[in-house]
Amino acid sequence: MIPRYSRPALQRIWSAEHRYASWLRVELAACEAMEEAGIVPAGTAASIAPRVKLRPGRIEEIEETTRHDVIAFLTHVEEQAGPPARWLHRGMTSSDVLDTAFALQLTEAVDEILRGIDALCSALRERAIEHRGTAIIGRTHGIHAEPTSLGLVFAGLYAALGRDRARLALARTGIAYGKISGAVGTFAHLDPAIERGALRRLGLEPEPVATQVVPRDRHAQLLCVLALTAASIERFALTVRHWQRTEVLEAEEPFEKGQKGSSAMPHKRNPILSENLCGLARIVRAAVAPALEDVALWHERDISHSSVERMIAPDATATLDFMLARACKLAQGLVVYPENIQRNLELTGGLVFSEGVLLALVDAGIGRQEAYVMVQRNAMRAWAGEGGFQELLEKDQEVIGALGAEKLRRCFDLGLALRHVDAILERVLSPEEA
Amino acid sequence: MIPRYSRPALQRIWSAEHRYASWLRVELAACEAMEEAGIVPAGTAASIAPRVKLRPGRIEEIEETTRHDVIAFLTHVEEQAGPPARWLHRGMTSSDVLDTAFALQLTEAVDEILRGIDALCSALRERAIEHRGTAIIGRTHGIHAEPTSLGLVFAGLYAALGRDRARLALARTGIAYGKISGAVGTFAHLDPAIERGALRRLGLEPEPVATQVVPRDRHAQLLCVLALTAASIERFALTVRHWQRTEVLEAEEPFEKGQKGSSAMPHKRNPILSENLCGLARIVRAAVAPALEDVALWHERDISHSSVERMIAPDATATLDFMLARACKLAQGLVVYPENIQRNLELTGGLVFSEGVLLALVDAGIGRQEAYVMVQRNAMRAWAGEGGFQELLEKDQEVIGALGAEKLRRCFDLGLALRHVDAILERVLSPEEA
Amino acid sequence: MIPRYSRPALQRIWSAEHRYASWLRVELAACEAMEEAGIVPAGTAASIAPRVKLRPGRIEEIEETTRHDVIAFLTHVEEQAGPPARWLHRGMTSSDVLDTAFALQLTEAVDEILRGIDALCSALRERAIEHRGTAIIGRTHGIHAEPTSLGLVFAGLYAALGRDRARLALARTGIAYGKISGAVGTFAHLDPAIERGALRRLGLEPEPVATQVVPRDRHAQLLCVLALTAASIERFALTVRHWQRTEVLEAEEPFEKGQKGSSAMPHKRNPILSENLCGLARIVRAAVAPALEDVALWHERDISHSSVERMIAPDATATLDFMLARACKLAQGLVVYPENIQRNLELTGGLVFSEGVLLALVDAGIGRQEAYVMVQRNAMRAWAGEGGFQELLEKDQEVIGALGAEKLRRCFDLGLALRHVDAILERVLSPEEA
Amino acid sequence: MIPRYSRPALQRIWSAEHRYASWLRVELAACEAMEEAGIVPAGTAASIAPRVKLRPGRIEEIEETTRHDVIAFLTHVEEQAGPPARWLHRGMTSSDVLDTAFALQLTEAVDEILRGIDALCSALRERAIEHRGTAIIGRTHGIHAEPTSLGLVFAGLYAALGRDRARLALARTGIAYGKISGAVGTFAHLDPAIERGALRRLGLEPEPVATQVVPRDRHAQLLCVLALTAASIERFALTVRHWQRTEVLEAEEPFEKGQKGSSAMPHKRNPILSENLCGLARIVRAAVAPALEDVALWHERDISHSSVERMIAPDATATLDFMLARACKLAQGLVVYPENIQRNLELTGGLVFSEGVLLALVDAGIGRQEAYVMVQRNAMRAWAGEGGFQELLEKDQEVIGALGAEKLRRCFDLGLALRHVDAILERVLSPEEA
Repeated sequence: MIPRYSRPALQRIWSAEHRYASWLRVELAACEAMEEAGIVPAGTAASIAPRVKLRPGRIEEIEETTRHDVIAFLTHVEEQAGPPARWLHRGMTSSDVLDTAFALQLTEAVDEILRGIDALCSALRERAIEHRGTAIIGRTHGIHAEPTSLGLVFAGLYAALGRDRARLALARTGIAYGKISGAVGTFAHLDPAIERGALRRLGLEPEPVATQVVPRDRHAQLLCVLALTAASIERFALTVRHWQRTEVLEAEEPFEKGQKGSSAMPHKRNPILSENLCGLARIVRAAVAPALEDVALWHERDISHSSVERMIAPDATATLDFMLARACKLAQGLVVYPENIQRNLELTGGLVFSEGVLLALVDAGIGRQEAYVMVQRNAMRAWAGEGGFQELLEKDQEVIGALGAEKLRRCFDLGLALRHVDAILERVLSPEEA
Repeated sequence: MIPRYSRPALQRIWSAEHRYASWLRVELAACEAMEEAGIVPAGTAASIAPRVKLRPGRIEEIEETTRHDVIAFLTHVEEQAGPPARWLHRGMTSSDVLDTAFALQLTEAVDEILRGIDALCSALRERAIEHRGTAIIGRTHGIHAEPTSLGLVFAGLYAALGRDRARLALARTGIAYGKISGAVGTFAHLDPAIERGALRRLGLEPEPVATQVVPRDRHAQLLCVLALTAASIERFALTVRHWQRTEVLEAEEPFEKGQKGSSAMPHKRNPILSENLCGLARIVRAAVAPALEDVALWHERDISHSSVERMIAPDATATLDFMLARACKLAQGLVVYPENIQRNLELTGGLVFSEGVLLALVDAGIGRQEAYVMVQRNAMRAWAGEGGFQELLEKDQEVIGALGAEKLRRCFDLGLALRHVDAILERVLSPEEA
Repeated sequence: MIPRYSRPALQRIWSAEHRYASWLRVELAACEAMEEAGIVPAGTAASIAPRVKLRPGRIEEIEETTRHDVIAFLTHVEEQAGPPARWLHRGMTSSDVLDTAFALQLTEAVDEILRGIDALCSALRERAIEHRGTAIIGRTHGIHAEPTSLGLVFAGLYAALGRDRARLALARTGIAYGKISGAVGTFAHLDPAIERGALRRLGLEPEPVATQVVPRDRHAQLLCVLALTAASIERFALTVRHWQRTEVLEAEEPFEKGQKGSSAMPHKRNPILSENLCGLARIVRAAVAPALEDVALWHERDISHSSVERMIAPDATATLDFMLARACKLAQGLVVYPENIQRNLELTGGLVFSEGVLLALVDAGIGRQEAYVMVQRNAMRAWAGEGGFQELLEKDQEVIGALGAEKLRRCFDLGLALRHVDAILERVLSPEEA
Repeated sequence: MIPRYSRPALQRIWSAEHRYASWLRVELAACEAMEEAGIVPAGTAASIAPRVKLRPGRIEEIEETTRHDVIAFLTHVEEQAGPPARWLHRGMTSSDVLDTAFALQLTEAVDEILRGIDALCSALRERAIEHRGTAIIGRTHGIHAEPTSLGLVFAGLYAALGRDRARLALARTGIAYGKISGAVGTFAHLDPAIERGALRRLGLEPEPVATQVVPRDRHAQLLCVLALTAASIERFALTVRHWQRTEVLEAEEPFEKGQKGSSAMPHKRNPILSENLCGLARIVRAAVAPALEDVALWHERDISHSSVERMIAPDATATLDFMLARACKLAQGLVVYPENIQRNLELTGGLVFSEGVLLALVDAGIGRQEAYVMVQRNAMRAWAGEGGFQELLEKDQEVIGALGAEKLRRCFDLGLALRHVDAILERVLSPEEA
């Protein structure tokens, strides 16, 4: 997580301040649950809370001596809250606090990301509706294929992000688990009722079978979903980069007012937002492998996962959150050039309709091989620059004889080619699903 | 997918025979849907089906010339079925067949894997119940911590695999999408009704917004879940490897009757099944990155994903399926050595109960620091071999004075330490959830 | 390693036949070294060699019973060679054979790959020389920047592959290590002289400090270099894919005589070789992580690396070897379209020379800001279609006043812009380095 | 790069201050080379240098407006140095500065890492020599195999780190390349002589064929070597973790004076340094994939690599540097428990010598199968606790008859088993290689 690629909201979630504050929330929730169970004097948590003003610097100072972060934290709390603080952490192990607080931070980060997906989806949906009628050449292998609708391209990205949203909502549920069950998860010095009470206060579920820690497959699942979401954004960004190529120029990234290109050349507007998004997708993706390697810990836990998570949890969530905000801005501000889209659509002189001609000839009773030859000879001539494809076909007696002028014309009817676009859009943009 | 690490069922799913048979299923389903729509003469599919006997060798022979696998396949079908075969593939693009058939193969593979998870879960559940009462030392950082129950270890693995099962069931739903929507997914020469009809026959859903292909985030999600499941098995296997260490020897992999250790040494029984599982988990994990890189294709598709999938789809599914079968055998046959478990539990002379003594002293009104010193001095002596920890405490006047004999004894009561084990087990083994 | 993406040479290296033959080579080399040391009767190896005709099927049959591959192999050898075979494997451990033979197979595979790099380099070098004078627009961010030379593009790829070759030669040296040092690498029942003698016969070096196995960082290094080489090929393939885009079409993949595009459209020639290469690069890259995870084995070895290597060693070497052959064919046969290159170069009407104009103005004493304004206003008009950039500048009195006609003309002199191309090419294509 | 896991030296190298200072070094070196070439007035660089006091905050302020980091930097320099600063950056492109300065930072980071490797190697070498005579049980699969020497274990790690050092030295050479060749690497507005002069001043080589940037395979190679080195440290750390297990306890991580274990239990010393190292190895490893994905940029460059490098370059170098320092401390301070090593060595009652007995019997003329039975029956009894293995063999008339007392005794002679240890150590610890 570097400032350049993280929004303040995520920086806050992963700050030392918030980390310690989350620990305190867990300790106080557990304390209240113990009060409820009659193990700790009523009012303990209520008396501690107002007295504590966490100072990370002081905690780290104490840690220099204790070499144990949770003990340093508790010492600091006791410094401020006095005797009642001794009731905190009773029968608990450090991981009870750390893992439960980690779940709080992760769900907060995921909530930001969900908001980011929603905003991006909303922008993509709008562009899909705006451009449902914009015919654009469909490309496979980078080569012109058949016409499609620009709205459909946005709708496809919208649908992908929608799938990511659903996955992320599930991963959020999966990560919203805490534990207050002691050193090896057996409640040796605790009671399951206390765990229930504490976690209910925090909006978390109790881990059914904890070891010393919450099992790490939950976290690995989340990292996988973050990488999947990043890949969808990469798909969008890659599309923009292709659109903005000098020879294509069907769309361009938004430019700030007064922003100069990198030189005297006015055409030199680089798709730097999209390129940046492609790079950042690699970063989020790279967090999956270590997260998966963290799952198989030794026995009731080893601590190898800890250093990994200190780095990848902030990195992957903050980077994806940043990507979403940037992608949203990109989707909203993307400048579309309809005239260039039209120019490219016509670049091959109607050759992109050749499959329709072929099928029409077959429907008209011509053998497939024969029809292929008829189409091919005209396509070759068009490609060689001897005339437009449609025009050449109109002059081809065999073709015109088989199809007639009207049927041939219909093969080149863009509206006909795109007649099902609205139906497709309805499949994804219906209010229920949006 | 190498024979050594794949079961026949998965080998069959990914065989050339089955691949082509799946293509034929898709073509015939589409044909029937077209018959229904009145575009193709009724009975066409029914007349083709019995005449076709797919021969992969012949198809590959034709491909030498056509350099296009789907065209080679269709040519082969026409060789056998004659004229009616010309009605096949009408208005369709190769990917309509390939991606839809791929969904069929993947769901078949996932179904095998789901069965494998169920079998492994069942075995783990049984061992969990069998050993709910077997006290074993809990270890954190590889160091003795507090006692836990062996049944709980199995239950934790059972719960993890249960989460994987739920994830996989969702990924199966996510992958069960086909498309019959033509070259760029616009139904230019088709109708959505045909797609619906064809996919309904195949048990698949229509891709809401296809490009030329079904979007690859669906496949990437599946690969993530396969890797997560492999990581859970790795967690189990790693545990077995630790148990079987010469100095620990709390459990051992099943040995075939008459199987010799690798040398004259009868103790030389190596946990090769578990080591193998740990290695194979790396293989399944390695498939995630390329699957994620496949998501961002160019425009309406590029074909870079194809070679990747030809390798990782069989590799990852077959390897995981093999792992599950092996892990199941391992779970069922694992030989547990209760006497060694007991010996290790007592290895530190009761020191693993020290936290309980500390808490009891605090409960009895001793200040925490003071209590710590009281426990520590006896622990030190026990560690130095001057006597058992409990015995030393009993002789420590301050301790015995504060706690009394009964309260002290209770600190060393294993049953008390494990009193909540049943409640934990109920959280995961209840019939509803199993 | 699937047949579709591996050449026969690599299939042979990784075949069961060759694997067992390599084992036999190691056993016989060790036997000869023991004969030399007087431990085994002279002539033993010589008497065994001609009698053995390895049959993998039979070995696997025996393995069914022994459940140990090396023992099965030795049994099979003894079946054929009789009593002298009992002298084989004396004091050795299975890994002495397996790891040493693995080194033989890996170096053979690397030798094939080195040949593949040489062929590709040779093709790239030739195209670099052929096109040293072909001016082409240089693109950054996918946007036209300044002119460069097509020969330089090939030379850059040539230089990259040359670096990979040097890395691979080193990795080959690093992997050419065997061991004949027994169960934990201590020569407990052997002598270092025997290891020296055996490995000298095999062209390998003795591992200085073996455990039971040759340390796996050697193999991981090789896998890294394979992935680096694959990335260089990906760089080349990605370039071709961009060149072949319909709107760009500066070069095209070679087409077999009579090969049809995928439809009636003659422009529909897809860069499938290059797309395939991009996909396969992901496969080779994916082998790096598991290879790195194999390095940290338990104590004197655990066997988790074995299953990994059975899959990634053939996969990564055969896939890269296949990529090189395909990339070589691609480099040799790439069809370059000079007229399209020229058309694209002129697409922005000379704007790509704007930096030169700016610098010339500054050299002529104009302040940088002022010069920028002068260039920009003409660039804007050219971009808006009001005339060619050079033509507009010639009419701009301030510009022409400052530079004069000749100096202005020189700013648009392609030859001048590319005057250092030959010097660059000499840096990499000189005979010493080629 | 988080403060917790990075040393000040690396934090400094990757600080904004140092980044900008490196840019200035490059600009001034290029300026001097241009002075030498007579393009820029003599003394320009010398007059700029003392006037500039870089303030990152101010540069970032300017960047808010310019949205271009290098332009902001140059503006800041001009603010301080006045008119002469206008001579800077002449004919150069931003990447000339960025990539060349990046090479400076990377080589500085690598130099720190090389020092770290040297220190770790030195510590491992010392421990190898110290414990050359310490017999310890060798373990394969986690199971006792044959005795080895603890010195040999250290020597194996020493040799591995030595290989990493050699790889890193090469990667350093490979990364020490800069470029001053303009927008697309053609020296359009520059001269190769200026590049040579500038880079000579900086201790870097000119990139033979640059595009806009230095090719990224150089950086990817470095990241691979960092991951390899991290894997060697992981191997060491994993070994320590195994040694420190409660049941094994052959060695323990150094404990600070007065450092408390995590609870009242004196045995609860957790190998947290080693666990941390294992986790951090995953982090360094995870940087390889994105580095490899950065190699294939579009045409003369796209900027997707930039965001990746801003994160992984500091992360991977600082983390590895930190790991080396921690591993060195671990190697130096590791507390070895010879009595526990001895206890474990004897755990199986001499069974670990059984292979020697078998070989001795075969040497004495007994058939291999027969000898196996003789050894096995005694091993079984020893394993069953009916007596020590050696003792039982001595009472076995057949065995003693075949071998005699002396030959049998020699089979259990540790000194004999480890007689080649010194020779092995000499292979790696000789002064020339150390």
